[in-house]
Amino acid sequence: MASTKDQVHEYYDFILPLVLQAGKVLTDAEQVEVEFKKDIWDLVTVHDRKIEEVLIQSIKDKYPSHKYIGEEDTESKKSTPKLTDDPTWIIDPIDGTANFVRGMPITGISVGLTINKEQWLGIVYNPYFNELFTAIKGEGAFLNGKRIHTSGCKEIAKSVIGYEITIARRNEYYYNLYMYRLKHLMPIIQGIRSLGCIILGLCYVACGRTDAYQCDGQYPWDLAAGGLILTEAGGHLVDSFGKDLDLMEPNFLGGATKELVDQYMEVERKADEERINADELKRKFSP
Amino acid sequence: MASTKDQVHEYYDFILPLVLQAGKVLTDAEQVEVEFKKDIWDLVTVHDRKIEEVLIQSIKDKYPSHKYIGEEDTESKKSTPKLTDDPTWIIDPIDGTANFVRGMPITGISVGLTINKEQWLGIVYNPYFNELFTAIKGEGAFLNGKRIHTSGCKEIAKSVIGYEITIARRNEYYYNLYMYRLKHLMPIIQGIRSLGCIILGLCYVACGRTDAYQCDGQYPWDLAAGGLILTEAGGHLVDSFGKDLDLMEPNFLGGATKELVDQYMEVERKADEERINADELKRKFSP
Repeated sequence: MASTKDQVHEYYDFILPLVLQAGKVLTDAEQVEVEFKKDIWDLVTVHDRKIEEVLIQSIKDKYPSHKYIGEEDTESKKSTPKLTDDPTWIIDPIDGTANFVRGMPITGISVGLTINKEQWLGIVYNPYFNELFTAIKGEGAFLNGKRIHTSGCKEIAKSVIGYEITIARRNEYYYNLYMYRLKHLMPIIQGIRSLGCIILGLCYVACGRTDAYQCDGQYPWDLAAGGLILTEAGGHLVDSFGKDLDLMEPNFLGGATKELVDQYMEVERKADEERINADELKRKFSP
Repeated sequence: MASTKDQVHEYYDFILPLVLQAGKVLTDAEQVEVEFKKDIWDLVTVHDRKIEEVLIQSIKDKYPSHKYIGEEDTESKKSTPKLTDDPTWIIDPIDGTANFVRGMPITGISVGLTINKEQWLGIVYNPYFNELFTAIKGEGAFLNGKRIHTSGCKEIAKSVIGYEITIARRNEYYYNLYMYRLKHLMPIIQGIRSLGCIILGLCYVACGRTDAYQCDGQYPWDLAAGGLILTEAGGHLVDSFGKDLDLMEPNFLGGATKELVDQYMEVERKADEERINADELKRKFSP
């Protein structure tokens, strides 16, 4: 019987051309039709659905026993995804949809694969820059076939973090969470970026373009591929509240090194503590 | 005698190939040597200087009577640039230097030209994405030769703003300025981006990728080209404090429409007022 590693290589060879093909759906999109879902910033496009359908249908045809988890499918079934030991494809057809619909080329397709609940394969593709980030568990991370590594940054004062502040817009809880952390982080970091695309945010740490990336209140498809690419590039990935990282309901902080992540965690614990305790200040922060 | 417009077309035809050539210096850069200036996030590279020298030397040779204003030259002379009626080239050889040194391809070259203190020509070039934004006063704005327009967004609730929060890192004044404005903006906007490149931030509003862009405490070379491209694309550009916009010491807010800019200005006046008056709260925001 083939080893898991051999199987994963087979899966990789199967899925890679489909991801590249899906990328072509994106770059060919001339006019994007937009629908608004629950929230004004949660945009869905026809292409989003089209790509997910293509990828999932191909997987179903080829590997009928495999499971899959994707945003659109999850929403339409109104069920929380459950991770099993079966090979499970975790797909985000277009991450950074709000960028996509505006023609901002910072967007991509994410495909992850778990087996026995472990992340084994990650592919993130930005067809606009023609940048393909890939990783297989234990074999390193690559950008367009070239091995990549994190920046190796160990000092928070020299670090640039990617942080999707837009999520503060979601509700009062996230508003306070993000604003308190910003309050504490801004004076001590070198810089901050908000690119509006989680999967690329993680990959950019993997290849040293930034030193850290954080996002709270996210979904499995945001982390399934990018998280593996980051750790395979030598990065360190934790739950941003200091709990066990849960791929199914991720709050994550990824960094170039464990030393750097530890420093971020220390500052953010202070921020979270202040948020929780200082009710008076909390009221003043609220809109 | 040739009209100013004819002259500008001649200048445009002269400078464009030089800008494209300067772009090649960037993309050919294999190893970037970095020096740290005064501030940890204010990075200068050898290429930055190389590009500025090439552009300025060519201008000097061709048009000895023209003036120029550029970051490196200004710093080395330790003089505040003064704008005269002469044709004046205002150049940023690499905007988004912190991105550039990290291999983040969101960076570009900016060349603006003023005549009689008016902005007549603007070129912003990102050689990594091969995106060339151009404008000549009164003739519209273009991306790779194709006419561009702003998104036309008129509602702050549907707007995405580019905001370089990293500048909050500069000192306590900017920290408070940015944090108070963020506090007021976050609950009512659709999203925020921090790309780390001012000139592209303005151009992305010009072509509808974002709806607004704001940056305080900036320099003439940040606005000289991008500002013209934005207004020629139908956008509206103001001083973010409601004064007359000063190209030499710009604090600017650019938006897709006047209606949108007015809404941002209203919110930010509230934020600034709170910052100035509420000393108690101000102390709590401080690091």
